Amino acid sequence: MTRTTVTDTSTSPLETRILDRETLRTAFVRIRANTIALTNPLEIEDQVIQTCEEVSPTKWHLGHTSWFFETLILKPFLPDYEPLDERYEYIFNSYYNAVGPQFSRPHRGLLSRPTVAEIHDYRAYVERWMETFFRTADAKTWAHAAYAIEVGLHHEQQHQELILTDIKEVLSHNPLTPAPYAPGRQVPHPSRRQAVQWHAFEGGLSLIGHDPAASGATFAFDNECPRHEKLITPFELASKPVTNREFLTFVREGGYQDPAHWFSDGWALVQQQGWTAPLYWQCIDGEWRHYTLCGLMALDPHAPVSHVSFYEASAYASWAGARLPTEFEWEHAAATQEVPSQANLLDFSSAAQAAAPVDAPRPRAVPSDQGLSQMFGDVWEWTMSPYAPYRGYQTFSGPLSEYNGKFMCNQYVLRGGACTTPRDHIRRTYRNFFPPDARWQLSGFRLARDDV
Amino acid sequence: MTRTTVTDTSTSPLETRILDRETLRTAFVRIRANTIALTNPLEIEDQVIQTCEEVSPTKWHLGHTSWFFETLILKPFLPDYEPLDERYEYIFNSYYNAVGPQFSRPHRGLLSRPTVAEIHDYRAYVERWMETFFRTADAKTWAHAAYAIEVGLHHEQQHQELILTDIKEVLSHNPLTPAPYAPGRQVPHPSRRQAVQWHAFEGGLSLIGHDPAASGATFAFDNECPRHEKLITPFELASKPVTNREFLTFVREGGYQDPAHWFSDGWALVQQQGWTAPLYWQCIDGEWRHYTLCGLMALDPHAPVSHVSFYEASAYASWAGARLPTEFEWEHAAATQEVPSQANLLDFSSAAQAAAPVDAPRPRAVPSDQGLSQMFGDVWEWTMSPYAPYRGYQTFSGPLSEYNGKFMCNQYVLRGGACTTPRDHIRRTYRNFFPPDARWQLSGFRLARDDV
Amino acid sequence: MTRTTVTDTSTSPLETRILDRETLRTAFVRIRANTIALTNPLEIEDQVIQTCEEVSPTKWHLGHTSWFFETLILKPFLPDYEPLDERYEYIFNSYYNAVGPQFSRPHRGLLSRPTVAEIHDYRAYVERWMETFFRTADAKTWAHAAYAIEVGLHHEQQHQELILTDIKEVLSHNPLTPAPYAPGRQVPHPSRRQAVQWHAFEGGLSLIGHDPAASGATFAFDNECPRHEKLITPFELASKPVTNREFLTFVREGGYQDPAHWFSDGWALVQQQGWTAPLYWQCIDGEWRHYTLCGLMALDPHAPVSHVSFYEASAYASWAGARLPTEFEWEHAAATQEVPSQANLLDFSSAAQAAAPVDAPRPRAVPSDQGLSQMFGDVWEWTMSPYAPYRGYQTFSGPLSEYNGKFMCNQYVLRGGACTTPRDHIRRTYRNFFPPDARWQLSGFRLARDDV
Amino acid sequence: MTRTTVTDTSTSPLETRILDRETLRTAFVRIRANTIALTNPLEIEDQVIQTCEEVSPTKWHLGHTSWFFETLILKPFLPDYEPLDERYEYIFNSYYNAVGPQFSRPHRGLLSRPTVAEIHDYRAYVERWMETFFRTADAKTWAHAAYAIEVGLHHEQQHQELILTDIKEVLSHNPLTPAPYAPGRQVPHPSRRQAVQWHAFEGGLSLIGHDPAASGATFAFDNECPRHEKLITPFELASKPVTNREFLTFVREGGYQDPAHWFSDGWALVQQQGWTAPLYWQCIDGEWRHYTLCGLMALDPHAPVSHVSFYEASAYASWAGARLPTEFEWEHAAATQEVPSQANLLDFSSAAQAAAPVDAPRPRAVPSDQGLSQMFGDVWEWTMSPYAPYRGYQTFSGPLSEYNGKFMCNQYVLRGGACTTPRDHIRRTYRNFFPPDARWQLSGFRLARDDV
Repeated sequence: MTRTTVTDTSTSPLETRILDRETLRTAFVRIRANTIALTNPLEIEDQVIQTCEEVSPTKWHLGHTSWFFETLILKPFLPDYEPLDERYEYIFNSYYNAVGPQFSRPHRGLLSRPTVAEIHDYRAYVERWMETFFRTADAKTWAHAAYAIEVGLHHEQQHQELILTDIKEVLSHNPLTPAPYAPGRQVPHPSRRQAVQWHAFEGGLSLIGHDPAASGATFAFDNECPRHEKLITPFELASKPVTNREFLTFVREGGYQDPAHWFSDGWALVQQQGWTAPLYWQCIDGEWRHYTLCGLMALDPHAPVSHVSFYEASAYASWAGARLPTEFEWEHAAATQEVPSQANLLDFSSAAQAAAPVDAPRPRAVPSDQGLSQMFGDVWEWTMSPYAPYRGYQTFSGPLSEYNGKFMCNQYVLRGGACTTPRDHIRRTYRNFFPPDARWQLSGFRLARDDV
Repeated sequence: MTRTTVTDTSTSPLETRILDRETLRTAFVRIRANTIALTNPLEIEDQVIQTCEEVSPTKWHLGHTSWFFETLILKPFLPDYEPLDERYEYIFNSYYNAVGPQFSRPHRGLLSRPTVAEIHDYRAYVERWMETFFRTADAKTWAHAAYAIEVGLHHEQQHQELILTDIKEVLSHNPLTPAPYAPGRQVPHPSRRQAVQWHAFEGGLSLIGHDPAASGATFAFDNECPRHEKLITPFELASKPVTNREFLTFVREGGYQDPAHWFSDGWALVQQQGWTAPLYWQCIDGEWRHYTLCGLMALDPHAPVSHVSFYEASAYASWAGARLPTEFEWEHAAATQEVPSQANLLDFSSAAQAAAPVDAPRPRAVPSDQGLSQMFGDVWEWTMSPYAPYRGYQTFSGPLSEYNGKFMCNQYVLRGGACTTPRDHIRRTYRNFFPPDARWQLSGFRLARDDV
Repeated sequence: MTRTTVTDTSTSPLETRILDRETLRTAFVRIRANTIALTNPLEIEDQVIQTCEEVSPTKWHLGHTSWFFETLILKPFLPDYEPLDERYEYIFNSYYNAVGPQFSRPHRGLLSRPTVAEIHDYRAYVERWMETFFRTADAKTWAHAAYAIEVGLHHEQQHQELILTDIKEVLSHNPLTPAPYAPGRQVPHPSRRQAVQWHAFEGGLSLIGHDPAASGATFAFDNECPRHEKLITPFELASKPVTNREFLTFVREGGYQDPAHWFSDGWALVQQQGWTAPLYWQCIDGEWRHYTLCGLMALDPHAPVSHVSFYEASAYASWAGARLPTEFEWEHAAATQEVPSQANLLDFSSAAQAAAPVDAPRPRAVPSDQGLSQMFGDVWEWTMSPYAPYRGYQTFSGPLSEYNGKFMCNQYVLRGGACTTPRDHIRRTYRNFFPPDARWQLSGFRLARDDV
Repeated sequence: MTRTTVTDTSTSPLETRILDRETLRTAFVRIRANTIALTNPLEIEDQVIQTCEEVSPTKWHLGHTSWFFETLILKPFLPDYEPLDERYEYIFNSYYNAVGPQFSRPHRGLLSRPTVAEIHDYRAYVERWMETFFRTADAKTWAHAAYAIEVGLHHEQQHQELILTDIKEVLSHNPLTPAPYAPGRQVPHPSRRQAVQWHAFEGGLSLIGHDPAASGATFAFDNECPRHEKLITPFELASKPVTNREFLTFVREGGYQDPAHWFSDGWALVQQQGWTAPLYWQCIDGEWRHYTLCGLMALDPHAPVSHVSFYEASAYASWAGARLPTEFEWEHAAATQEVPSQANLLDFSSAAQAAAPVDAPRPRAVPSDQGLSQMFGDVWEWTMSPYAPYRGYQTFSGPLSEYNGKFMCNQYVLRGGACTTPRDHIRRTYRNFFPPDARWQLSGFRLARDDV
C-alpha cells in the first residue's frame, strides 16, 4: 500500500489521504463480496422487513451501500455515468439532506420493490461502473475521489454490522424463532470463567484521538479528530466486561424493580416498556435463554453481557458501586494495545468461514491471562461520555459533512467493536455512538472507578 | 349437484345444507388453484408486506385460508390428521377467540417466516389431507362437515378479493408504482357514456334476505338470514353508479373543502388525513390519474368511481341533493335481477384469463340500454344501512359464530360485488360490510331519493 | 301557552312553531337560573378542567349556552346588539361550521380565561339583551326567532345534564374523591327489590316519531321527525332496567373476561382499556362501590346499573340470552305512557331542592307494581338502533342544520332520560345518541327478546 | 450569619453546612412570602391548568414547595407533627421514589382539588409547624435538619422561577392573550444597542465547581461539586448574548428552512413541530411580536433572544460560524465576576416591586461599557456541555439523592440565571439543565469560538 497526499488546502487534513488504486480496488471487491456473503443465509422474505424506525430491511442496506458509491463517486467523478434508475437516489438516501430528499425512514419496510434480485443487479451495475472508474480515472480525479472511496468502504463495513444486528432484531419478533445461521454449525464451548481484576491508571495529560499526519496513520472518521490533550485523573478499569452471570445477579436481585440506580429517563423507560432483562433474554421455566441468529440458546455465563442499553449499563454500574469509564479513560487505557488476533470480531477470511460466511456472531469470553482483556471485539462498551465534538473538530466536506457531526446530541460513545464488527474496521480511536435507550446492537460494558 | 339435509336440530337451518362430495371436491380444487393463480404475478417481496392494520400480507392470506380448512375440518373431523406445524394455529388465526389466541393482527407484516414457499407447502399439505377427507369421511361425518367446507370455499373467495385489494394498497405506497398485472395487457377502451335515469319503486312490504329452505336455495352466510318482511316506502334509484366524471365535479367544486355535506366524523377525518380525492387518485400537472395494479392510469370518466369511503359517498349524495339507498331498497330493486353474464366480476375461467389469471380488475362501465345497470360487479355499492342483525338472526354455531355477528357494530353495508369479486361468489342477498372510513376496497355507490 | 304558525314555506314544518313571548321569556329566566343553580356547589377550580375530548369544563358550558342565544338570536335579529367580546364567538362555538371556526375542542381545558366570573358576566349580559329582545321584537321578527329560542332552551337543558355528567367524570380522577353535592344530604334508602317481568307486544305497523302538526304537539328536535310507519314484529320487553345486582353477577361470572358475548370492537376496547366493571365502580376489599357526586358510595343493588357503554349493554344482553330493544320497539311500548310524576328525573322545583339545586342525581329504583316501570328517568336506555335519519328526515335550517343530522353515523340511540335529565325535557319520541364506547352518561339498559 | 459544621462523617461535605436558626427562619419567612406574592396577580382559574407534561399548575407548585418542608423536615425531625392531609404526600410528590409513589405528572392539571384556598391553608399549616420547629428543635436535630432546610429554600426559589415560566406557557395558549402582570405598568424603554466584542481567554488548568470547605463558601447544590481541575484550551467569548435583532436575521435568512446547521434530532423537531421562530414569537402583518406576561409586545431588538432551545442556539451558532461555549469555558470566564447589582434578575425587594411583586420579567439589555456583560441575569445561557457528573461527584444523601443526579442524561447545562431567577439564587458555579428541545424557560445563549 502506497500513500500520497493531495494538496488542495480547502479540504480537511483527513481528506488529503490518498490510497493507491489497486489497494482500494482490491478492498472494494473483497468488502462488497463480504456484504453479499453475509446475506446469503437469509430468505428473500427476511430481507424485506422493518420492525421499527431504527432497523432497516436487509435489502435496503444492500441498496444504500451501492447508492453511496453511486452518489459520492460515480455521479460527481465519472462523466459518462448513467444511473440504472434515477429514483434510487431518493429511495436509498439515508439522511443526506445535501443530496436531496429521502424516502421516509420509518417506512422502508413498506417497499417490496426494488426486489432483492433487482438490488443485487443494482449492486453489480454500480460495481461494473466502479471498475471503470478504478481503471480510467485520471490522477487528479483520483486524488479527489480516493478518500471518499475509502470512506465508502468503511461505511459498507458499518452496514455489514447493521445487517446482522438489524436482522437479529427482525427475526426475534417471530414466534418460529428462525435460526438462519445455525445449519451445520456446532455450538461453541461455553466460555471459561475468569476473575475480574482492577487495573490502575495514573492519568495526566493524555493524547486522545487520531492524527492523520502521523507516520503510518490509518484511516479514521472525522469524529476521531483532531488528536488533542485531555486531562485524565487517576482511575481503575476492570480487566474484562461484565458477564451474563454477573448481570443475571443484578436481574435476580431486583435491579429492574428498584429506581435507586437508574437515570430518571431510564427508569421511565423500564416502566413503560416493561423491561426486566437485556433484550433477547427470555426466562422459560426458570431458565434464562437468549435469542441468537442460531436460534434460542442457553446463556453463556462467562461471556460478556450484550444487548443492554446505556441506561441498563449505568444502573448496573451504580448498583455495583462503580461507574462506566469515560471514552477518554478507555482510549487512554487502550493506548498500548493492538487489536489482538484472537479478538472475537467478524472475520470473513478464516477457513471456518469458507463454507459459510458467518457463524452467528455472539460474545464469547476470549480470555487473556494478564492485563486488560476483550478491549476489542465481543461487545461494544458503553462509556459515560456523551457523544460530542472534540475540541477543534471539523466535519468532512461536502455531503459527507452529514456523516457524523449532526448526530452529536443525545447519544453516548461506545468503544472497542463487537463480534459483529469486521476485524479490519476497528481501532483504538474509533467512536461508535447510539442513543441511551438503544439495545439492538451488541452493546455491553466494562466498569471503572475513581482511584482516590 | 345434489343436496341433502342433516336432521340435527341443534344447528341453524343454514347449516343443514349438505352438498355432495364431488361437487365440493371439484369446487375446492378449482377455488384453491384460483387463489394461487391470483398471486402468481407477484414477487415474493410483495407478499410479505403489511402497510396498516386492515391490510394483511399476501402470504398471510395464503396461510389463513389453509388454516381455515385445517382448523374447522381436518382437526375436528379427521382423527388421523397431524398438523404440519402446531404453531401455525396461532400465526394464521385471524380473530377466532373460540379457537385460541391470535398473533397480533397489526404485526402480521413483521413475520418473514413461514416463507412464501413454506406456505405453499402448507397449502399443498392441507389439500392432500382434504383429499383424504373427501375420499374417506363416512356419511355422518360428511353431514356434519359439508356445510363448513362450503363456508370455507366462500371464505377463500372473500380472501381472493382481499388479496387483490390489499396488494393494491401495499404497492400504492411505492414510489416505483409497480404494475404486477400489467405485462402483456392491452389497455381497455374507455367506457361509454350513459345518461343516468331514475327508476321509481312503489315499495310496500317486501321480503328481504335469504331463505335456506326455499327450493333451489343457494349458499348464503348467516348474516343474510332469516328472510323477513321489511316495509319499503316509495323511492327512486339511479340506473347506474356515480362515475369518475361526476365525482370529479364534486372534487373540483370544493366538495372536500366544505363541511356542509359531511358527517361530523367524516369531516374530522378529511381534515386530519388531508383527503382531497378518492384513494389512489393523483393530480399530476392538472390531470387526474389513479393508481391501479397495472400502474398509474388516466381516469376513465364514465367508469364508476371507486375507492371512496362511506363518508365520501354520503357527502357526494348530499351535495347532489340525493341520498344513498338503504340495503333493503337495494335488494328490493334487485329482486328480479340475475347476476348478468357481462357483469364486470372477477372471472378465472374465460379464455382471456387463460394466459394470466387476472387483468388487474378495475371498474369499467358495462352499459345496459334499459333498466338498472351495473347492480352486480364493477364496484361495491355503499348503502346508508348500518350493518345490523336481521330480526331473528342466528349466528352459525361453533367457532363460525364469530364469522359475521361480532362485527355488527359501527360498519355499513355494501351490496352487489365489484370487479374484484369472484363471479360465483355474489348474489342479491349478499351483505358486505366495512367501517365508514374504509377506502381500500373497490367501493363506489349509487344514488337514491325518496319518491314523494 | 298559546301557539301560532308562521307561514314561511321555505322552513321545515317544525320551525313554524311559535310560542308566545311571555311563555318563552318565563321559561328562559327559569331555565337560565337553573343552570347557575346547578353549578353553585362547585369550586371555581372544578369548573376549569377537561379530562378528555368529550368532557367540557363547566365554565365552557356556561359560556356556550350563552353563545347560543347571542349567535342565533341577538346577532341575527337584534340590530343594535353589540357583543361583549367578539372573540367569544370563536371560543364558545362548539361545532357550528356555518357560524365560523371553533377553538379546538380537546383543548377547552387549556383556557383559564375568560374566568368563571367573567362568564357569569357574559351570561348576565346576554340575558339583559334577550330581555330587550323579548320586549322589543316586532311580530315578524318574533315569528322568525321564536322557534330558535325554544331550541336554545332545550339546548340549555341538554347542557345542564352534561354539566353534571362532565363534572362527575372530571372529579372521578381526583384521589381526594370530592363530593360537592353531598353536604347536608341524607343518603337515600336503598331501592326496593322488584322482580322482572316480560311484557309482550304484538307489533304491526306502528307510528313512530313526532308530528309537529298534531293537535297539542309539544316541542321536538328535527331528528324525531317525521312521524312515520314502522313495521314492528312481536317482541317482549322487560318491565324494568337491568339492576346493579344483576350486572354484578355478570361481572363476577367473568363477563369481562370472555369474548363470546362482545362485539369485536367492544372486546378490543375491554382489553385495551382494562375494563372490568362499569365506569366509576371500584372493588375495595371485596366490596363494590361507585363514585358519585356525593362521594364514594355502596352500590344500591336494586337500582338500575348505569355508566355502561353500548358494548357492555350488548354483551350483558347476549350473556342473558336476550337482546336490546330497537328504538322503535321502545317507543312503541312507551306509546301509552306519560312521563310519571314519580319518575327519577332532574327536578329544580321541589321543596327538597329549594335549599340546594340538586341531590347528586343517581339511579334509584322507582318501583311500580304493574306494567313497565322506569321507562322515563333513572337511566338512559341503550337501544340496538344505530342513530340514523327517519325516512323523509329534514334538518333544521340555517346553522341549526348542524344540530343533529351530522352526527347520524357510528352512534346508537338511547331513550327515556335519566336522573340527570331535566323533568320537562324528556318525551316519548326523544332520541338521545352516543358512540358505543361512551360511558360517562347515566346510561343503562333494559332487555328485550323476540316473541316467537 | 454564623456557620458551624456537623461532624457526622457519613454525609457528604456539603451537608455539614449548618446555618443558624435565625438566619434560616428569616429567609424562610421572606422566601415563602415571595412565592405567594408572585402568584397574587393570577386568577384562581390560571393556577389550575397544565398544558403539557413539563408545565405544572401554579397551585401544584404552591403545594409541592410545602410538601418539601413537610416531607424532609417536619415528618422526620418533628415527632409531634400531624399532617393536614395524609394524601398530600402522594399528590404533591414530584419525583422522589424514595419517599413513595407519585400522582402522575402529566395529569396534575386534572386535579381541581385541593383548591387554591386549601393549598394556601396547607402552606400556612406547614409554616406554623416550621415555626415550631425553628423554636423547639434541639441542637443535634438542628444540626441534621439545617442543610435540608437551606436546600428547601433554594428549591422554593427554583419553583418561583418555574411558576413564572409555567404560567407564561399556559397563558400563551389563550386566544385572549392574558396579561396578568400588566396592570399599572409602564412599558420599559427599549434596550440600548451595544456592539458585540470577542474576549480572548488563554485557558490552562482551571478550577471548576464549588468547594464547600472554602472560606466564606455559599450554599451550592451537589451537582456543583467537587471543585476540580479542567483543561481549558484558548477560546474567545462574546461580550453579550445574541440579541433578538441578530436572531431575527437568522430567521429571515431561512435558518429554520435549511438543515445544514441543525443537529439531526433538532431538524426532525423543526419539521415535526413546524418551528419557524423562537417560542412566543408571532409575525403579525409582517411585524414580529412576542407574547409576555404583560401581553403581546413588540420585540426589543437589542434585548437578548430568549425562549430558544439548545437546538436553535446550536444552529444559530453554526450559521454564525461560531459555537456555544462549554460550561467550563463559561465558568472560567466568569471566574472574576460578581453578580452585579444592575443584573436583570428577579427582585422582590426594590421599591418598584412594592406595589406589585413582579414586573413580568423579560430580558432587557443591561449594557456594560467594558468586559463581559449580562453574564448573570436576562437569559439562561445554553452551553454545549451535556449535563454530566463532575469527576468525584457525590449526590446528597437520603431522598435528596434524587434531586440532581438522576437527571444527568440527555440534558444540557445552562449558566448565569435569567430575569426570572431570584437575585440571591444565582452564582458562578450554578448549573441549570434542560433537555435540548426545551423552550419554555428564559433560555438564550452567547457565542464562543476557538482561539487558534
